[in-house]
Amino acid sequence: MEWTSVDLADCPVIRALDVVGQRWTLVVLREVYNDVGRFEDLQRHLGISPSVLSRRLAEMVDAGLLEREEYREEGRRPRHAYRATAKAWDLYPVVVGLMQWGDRHLRDGDRPAVALVDRRTGRRVVAAVVTDDVPACDPAEIDAVVTAA
Amino acid sequence: MEWTSVDLADCPVIRALDVVGQRWTLVVLREVYNDVGRFEDLQRHLGISPSVLSRRLAEMVDAGLLEREEYREEGRRPRHAYRATAKAWDLYPVVVGLMQWGDRHLRDGDRPAVALVDRRTGRRVVAAVVTDDVPACDPAEIDAVVTAA
Repeated sequence: MEWTSVDLADCPVIRALDVVGQRWTLVVLREVYNDVGRFEDLQRHLGISPSVLSRRLAEMVDAGLLEREEYREEGRRPRHAYRATAKAWDLYPVVVGLMQWGDRHLRDGDRPAVALVDRRTGRRVVAAVVTDDVPACDPAEIDAVVTAA
Repeated sequence: MEWTSVDLADCPVIRALDVVGQRWTLVVLREVYNDVGRFEDLQRHLGISPSVLSRRLAEMVDAGLLEREEYREEGRRPRHAYRATAKAWDLYPVVVGLMQWGDRHLRDGDRPAVALVDRRTGRRVVAAVVTDDVPACDPAEIDAVVTAA
């Protein structure tokens, strides 16, 4: 079957972009991948208004990308933290791929970059297209390392 | 250095999304990856107006993602065809990642899917996060195969 005979109404790229194509969605994922999941930490690090962040997080919970949990620090009222779901972790290669592409092609030369390093082997990790028998890195074993410019 | 001390003004994911976050950009890339590069073929397959497509293609040429070339069929006026640059091929894992994510999480069960298969080994290919010593598949050796529902 020829590529051009595939009906684009079914196109999974278009469908995926309808869910994750908004700028903040993948940026929030990058935060929760890096264990930044508490509302106030997200708000501080992303520098957006609480109302915009609340709306975006609620949409991502509805889309099945985030799980919300409550936590309470002593003497304070309960607060929310967010965690990536399995569906969100399936986007990990996309986020890593965008990150490495932005670093390679758009970065100002005098700014530091973030490298992802596999803790077990010390090797850099990359998003790549590989055959399905290749073992993928475990995100829990990947460190984000800020490199010199 | 802690993740949260990284200044997000430098964030390569945000910079990348500013360039490729628009719905049509990655969709056009998917077409040219699949050797659909002639203006009239793109227009027919994507089903968008010639003026919208022209504008998008010009933006992608300006962004260094596409190269334009002229071709002429006998007895017809010269026309344009578009080819992915090396900078565009660096986004290949992102597009494949979105495609497999959309197929896995958003597809209606009764519609066909497109599988990517490595021609040399017959194995499916996937976008994955791997260490940088893993050999990536050559896109020229990957076939898009329409599978049954």
